[in-house]
Amino acid sequence: MTQQDHGTLSLAAAEVVQIVRQLGLSRSIAEVAALLEADLRRWPDFQKVERVALHSAEGVIELMPASDDQLYAFKYVNGHPGNTRLGLPTVMAFGVLAEVATGRPLLLAELTLLTAIRTAAMSALAARILGRSDSCTMALIGNGAQAEFQALALRDLAGIRRLRLFDLDAHATAKLQRNLQGQGLELVVCANTAEAVRGADVVTTLTAAKARTAVIAPEMVEPGMHFNSVGGDCPGKTELQVEVLKRASLFVEYAPQTRIEGEIQQLDADWPVTELWQVLRGERPGRRSAGEVTVFDSVGFAVADHAALRFLWHAAQRLGIGQTMQLLPTLADPKDLFATLGAPAALPPAAPQ
Amino acid sequence: MTQQDHGTLSLAAAEVVQIVRQLGLSRSIAEVAALLEADLRRWPDFQKVERVALHSAEGVIELMPASDDQLYAFKYVNGHPGNTRLGLPTVMAFGVLAEVATGRPLLLAELTLLTAIRTAAMSALAARILGRSDSCTMALIGNGAQAEFQALALRDLAGIRRLRLFDLDAHATAKLQRNLQGQGLELVVCANTAEAVRGADVVTTLTAAKARTAVIAPEMVEPGMHFNSVGGDCPGKTELQVEVLKRASLFVEYAPQTRIEGEIQQLDADWPVTELWQVLRGERPGRRSAGEVTVFDSVGFAVADHAALRFLWHAAQRLGIGQTMQLLPTLADPKDLFATLGAPAALPPAAPQ
Repeated sequence: MTQQDHGTLSLAAAEVVQIVRQLGLSRSIAEVAALLEADLRRWPDFQKVERVALHSAEGVIELMPASDDQLYAFKYVNGHPGNTRLGLPTVMAFGVLAEVATGRPLLLAELTLLTAIRTAAMSALAARILGRSDSCTMALIGNGAQAEFQALALRDLAGIRRLRLFDLDAHATAKLQRNLQGQGLELVVCANTAEAVRGADVVTTLTAAKARTAVIAPEMVEPGMHFNSVGGDCPGKTELQVEVLKRASLFVEYAPQTRIEGEIQQLDADWPVTELWQVLRGERPGRRSAGEVTVFDSVGFAVADHAALRFLWHAAQRLGIGQTMQLLPTLADPKDLFATLGAPAALPPAAPQ
Repeated sequence: MTQQDHGTLSLAAAEVVQIVRQLGLSRSIAEVAALLEADLRRWPDFQKVERVALHSAEGVIELMPASDDQLYAFKYVNGHPGNTRLGLPTVMAFGVLAEVATGRPLLLAELTLLTAIRTAAMSALAARILGRSDSCTMALIGNGAQAEFQALALRDLAGIRRLRLFDLDAHATAKLQRNLQGQGLELVVCANTAEAVRGADVVTTLTAAKARTAVIAPEMVEPGMHFNSVGGDCPGKTELQVEVLKRASLFVEYAPQTRIEGEIQQLDADWPVTELWQVLRGERPGRRSAGEVTVFDSVGFAVADHAALRFLWHAAQRLGIGQTMQLLPTLADPKDLFATLGAPAALPPAAPQ
């Protein structure tokens, strides 16, 4: 776990849960959001690249690398809508944090829980930066695995006190209501998306969109609304009708990736968008009036996973949680990899073939 | 370790060594080569992509994914020439094999040793396919960590019986001589590259090239030689002078990646090259005469790591080696990630901030 030995700290799913439980979910979200906000402020310092997605009939598997001059991180994440039938999560993730100076992996960690946390933290930052400062009601369209995290992050970081809930699956909404009992949030269950959106300050779409759905239609949009579009994150997978986008100011994490995967895949490749870090650094305007409609077209970007892994790396060491894995060979002579196999004489005789 | 539970089989460095020791290095090389040859024959079945490399002042960290319709694999690998000063290998690697249908990671394995094995297996296949069938002498320029593996793979799979050795570092050559004692190979230590290349049938360059070096000059090339250029594998890192390339027939693993990283980065982007699988499948000619000079411009491609991970996956299960890691969360309800944190009431009270 130290720089001296060459072990890699590993955090299995249960150990990540232990970290978040010990710190508390609110504090975990706040710590990840603080790292993320700092990263947005130093965004140009990161090496960034679109994620590498390999698609199959059943889903997608992606690799998401990002690096600053000290630490390199990548996340492996899948998306398989049919997994729930097999008792597996739709999205599973793990990641690695490595030392840039040597390439040595420092941390291997399960990231399913942290993916939900960092996504919620990013949404909360976007709502705080782009939403109206008097925002207190959020419509939550899609009440699945990420909904609780979004609810609590926007409560803690963006002033949300009332949720208007809708999901095609009433069981999902019932689960969300159960899980959010006693969390200081007023919950209003709605009959459809239009009803849920009505009067909301922030609208978060979190559906398991599998195609170009039209969860949000132009007639639902009210002046001053801020949209966090979270569910559409694949080529061919969107949640907002194109007319909604055309009438709003658009904000993204990293434009080259969002143009491939986000809502803005529906627009021309040169349609103007602003990266969120530009607003935070004062380089580009954010919201310009109380009546403006803003959209944060969130697809999830590698820099947020870099922050999530740093959170785990520091928290695990602080709390003494995790195992050390000898992922790398310990070589007496780095130029003599062959010696790890034992004395040459101990090798079985050659059998030419 | 089975399909039933959701554990990921993990193989630390020592466990991979145990597998290769139990099977024997020759058999391990042969099994990886057999998988690789089968993969070359079904090459169009793979989803392929250039690796994603992030460079720093000290080195490079790369992700290399590839997938067929059953299994997805990726490798993490670094290249840091200064690492040996710190007692760390220049190249360290690990990889993951996952199920395409669900995205579930099946195997996490250290791959430093297997990277050397699969590279040697690929070189041996290339020499067997492209070299003259009467080849028996190989020049080995660069006698570092990969040299023993190349020597044994070409002995077993490409008929090599005599090695002509040269390295700028005489200690490396002495180590190679020691390690290859009693392996049925005649060893000739040479004073320089030109002397080592003289009269060789196969020339393997394995230098830790850090720039556009000119290890092989046109005047060293003799009719009928086959070159395996293994050491040059980064933009700006080459081993063969451009005139050597221009006078030879050029073969690569995957052209889009090799044009970025291989010897052929020195040539125009439309300079004709043949992918090795095309020769094996009879779709394009390989060597056309005994006097032709052939070059396999090897940079290392993700499909070979896919094969290496499949080798480890099957061997580990056969031999009962490895640990099960609970990398993924076990969710009672896949739509209820929040429930992994415990009953809502058990959460600390919200502290808005």
